[in-house]
Amino acid sequence: MHVFFLQVCEWREPEELAQLLDLELKATGESQDRLLQRVQDVAKYSIKTSHPRFLNQQFGGVDYHALAGRFLTEALNTNLFTYEVAPVFVLLEMEVLKSLRQLVGWTQGDGIFCPGGSASNMYAMNLARYRLFPEVKSQGLYGLPRLTVFTSSQSHYSVKKGAAFLGIGIDNVIVVKVDDGGCMIPEDLDEKIKLSKSQGAVPFLVSCTSGTTVQGAFDPLDRIADVCEKHKIWMHVDAAWGGSVLFSEQHRHLMKGVDRANSVAWNPHKMLLAGLQCSAFLLQDTTNLLKRCHSANATYLFQQDKFYDVNLDCGDKTVQCSRKVDCLKLWLMWKAIGSSGMAQRVDKAFIHARYLEEQMKKREGFHLVCKPEFVNICFWFIPPSMRGKEQNADYQDRLGKVAPAIKERMMKQGTMMVGYQPLADKVNFFRLVVLSPQVSTKDMDFFLDEIERLGNDL
Amino acid sequence: MHVFFLQVCEWREPEELAQLLDLELKATGESQDRLLQRVQDVAKYSIKTSHPRFLNQQFGGVDYHALAGRFLTEALNTNLFTYEVAPVFVLLEMEVLKSLRQLVGWTQGDGIFCPGGSASNMYAMNLARYRLFPEVKSQGLYGLPRLTVFTSSQSHYSVKKGAAFLGIGIDNVIVVKVDDGGCMIPEDLDEKIKLSKSQGAVPFLVSCTSGTTVQGAFDPLDRIADVCEKHKIWMHVDAAWGGSVLFSEQHRHLMKGVDRANSVAWNPHKMLLAGLQCSAFLLQDTTNLLKRCHSANATYLFQQDKFYDVNLDCGDKTVQCSRKVDCLKLWLMWKAIGSSGMAQRVDKAFIHARYLEEQMKKREGFHLVCKPEFVNICFWFIPPSMRGKEQNADYQDRLGKVAPAIKERMMKQGTMMVGYQPLADKVNFFRLVVLSPQVSTKDMDFFLDEIERLGNDL
Repeated sequence: MHVFFLQVCEWREPEELAQLLDLELKATGESQDRLLQRVQDVAKYSIKTSHPRFLNQQFGGVDYHALAGRFLTEALNTNLFTYEVAPVFVLLEMEVLKSLRQLVGWTQGDGIFCPGGSASNMYAMNLARYRLFPEVKSQGLYGLPRLTVFTSSQSHYSVKKGAAFLGIGIDNVIVVKVDDGGCMIPEDLDEKIKLSKSQGAVPFLVSCTSGTTVQGAFDPLDRIADVCEKHKIWMHVDAAWGGSVLFSEQHRHLMKGVDRANSVAWNPHKMLLAGLQCSAFLLQDTTNLLKRCHSANATYLFQQDKFYDVNLDCGDKTVQCSRKVDCLKLWLMWKAIGSSGMAQRVDKAFIHARYLEEQMKKREGFHLVCKPEFVNICFWFIPPSMRGKEQNADYQDRLGKVAPAIKERMMKQGTMMVGYQPLADKVNFFRLVVLSPQVSTKDMDFFLDEIERLGNDL
Repeated sequence: MHVFFLQVCEWREPEELAQLLDLELKATGESQDRLLQRVQDVAKYSIKTSHPRFLNQQFGGVDYHALAGRFLTEALNTNLFTYEVAPVFVLLEMEVLKSLRQLVGWTQGDGIFCPGGSASNMYAMNLARYRLFPEVKSQGLYGLPRLTVFTSSQSHYSVKKGAAFLGIGIDNVIVVKVDDGGCMIPEDLDEKIKLSKSQGAVPFLVSCTSGTTVQGAFDPLDRIADVCEKHKIWMHVDAAWGGSVLFSEQHRHLMKGVDRANSVAWNPHKMLLAGLQCSAFLLQDTTNLLKRCHSANATYLFQQDKFYDVNLDCGDKTVQCSRKVDCLKLWLMWKAIGSSGMAQRVDKAFIHARYLEEQMKKREGFHLVCKPEFVNICFWFIPPSMRGKEQNADYQDRLGKVAPAIKERMMKQGTMMVGYQPLADKVNFFRLVVLSPQVSTKDMDFFLDEIERLGNDL
């Protein structure tokens, strides 16, 4: 018997989907009936990311209070650059940032919402550079010594993208070794910094990761802070993924030492389900560094002769001009469920992940890549035909083709979604991310059964 | 008799508003009734940017089809980086970009939606630099000659912000003179480029403006293209504000020569009312420059062994990772009203602006700063007490205080909103921006009456 339920996706080949959607934009408009059909088509063929079996990425699920906040944000359609046009949101953003900073362990500081964690990481890079060489803002990098950034081999790719974009160059991102769990090794960091100095470069930023993208590893922040203090280097924590553990009494130890950082990137659109985009960049600084570094003092927007306190005009803290309101949805959700509700959400994700880990150990074909420290479950599925044949010359090669093959079947049948990737010397494995509180034990059991169903004949 | 109508704003002092909103985030959640009240408060004290008397900025008004698209985007909550998680939106974005490019006059090319026009302008800068010196991506600016950017004195401040952010430095943004209308003088551009070269720098980007922020001036693109071609420099057009004239047969001549540009930034969230944020970055290039320049080839996201054409995974064209879906609202609105509806919207804004211009000429206290080329109406209001006293020593000083004083009264009474600013040697003047098709003659007459009512006793 086959039970019908809403698909996670209705896969169509790109050419077919393009035809179904009738993409072309024409001179004349269409009837309301036709438009309503289009809205239905868009929904039908889009991925159901709020489906409990969408486990593909570090977002998913839905919080209805946040969704209400998002609809309201759209309806109010304003720009978060001055108190004048966004009085409510300027105050809300300040409050949300303050509350996030408190969780980091800071009683004061600064911050801003950015269009994604990559932008937050770039902000950290730009501020660290400016603090060391304020003249970079006016003169650029010309005449400055070579600057180097340090980050682990498993950090997010945005560190390299940021270095390229900011004119520092990818080669000046020095890759620090990780241990088996995927955590940065502070001793290697210390050595690499010394080496870089000896080569005439100026190390100016260490970008740690709290919750790496694939393995979910947490760098040892306290020990890294020691190294940063010793060398007087800006310590940034990319906690885009893992930051939300700070809500949980039980799990916040994973980020012990984060209060010693200079800056933190934290995306509530991931584990907290605030909805895309919601990325906070937090700063311990109290010297108005963010504004000094980024401001252009445009007289048409940031007039100094306004009748209210122009320090409320936050727009010159960013490198954007138009800036979307990303704080309301988080504020409303936080009001709705409280910090305790957020903590429960985080704790529940861990419980789900531990459940999956235990179930995988009980099943023959599932092989964990590493012991999960967070809610990323990395595993290989070994089809029956390959079991016990680890010594065969083509074993790794064949294993690397299993995940893509299962993924294709899963997408085409639309039953669920999960991602895969290689990592360092490890061939393709699945990375399952559990974060939605709507995921049930039944969903997780289904997931394991489904992997077997899709992969047993490979 | 006083007629009541919905206020544009319900002004509150920041401290009072903070109290009214009860901002604090607590451990426990709240009742649904309380949350509903909060939603009402947020709406009540927010600026009504879709009100026909919100004329403060280059956004405003509402298009209900676009709004439906925005709600749907929020509900579907996905990330525009792979075909896998955003099949519909990958195709929609390609189609919308293609259609925008066609209006620019390109039959092929590339592009991406960015979080705002500032980001688009930075992308142009990064691509131009990479095209000239591909090694900048890996090695940074070290060892490269000093690079210089050229833009007019009235261009948007994001050009300078971008130069600072990208490590080029604000001092390396060479300011080109404008004529009385605020348009870049190509002869001065040519001279400044030669001068910069003679000083050992490498001019690599000219950032033209189609629709300057304050005056609404259009740089002479055809003549600037001649200069760019002669010197082999990347020509970028910041048409964030003015780009929408390309829909109008009657007004597209303002951007004659845009097809000779290398890149264009165009924000449909401004004049077309697509809703914040909607910023297209368009590119004539067909050599995959965008991806080559920005890619990091993250194996966890952009796997090359997928079962579909991985060229559809657009995420590596950007410096973001998470990227909000900004194309659906524009696509749906375009389907609803067609290109002809867009053209009418643009034409109507011009008609409104001409009406205001004529009415101002008929009223004694209104003095135009310059003849409007676009829909920005820049004017001084001269209170009766100052008329005929232009020769007084304190006249300019007093005049500069009129706009802020009227603005304060307007905000506190909440009847309408319009911005003001100084510009070069001109003291504070109002800049009225008409763009919403919902603005009526009555609204415009009201605007003029209201300026008089608020300012006649100054």
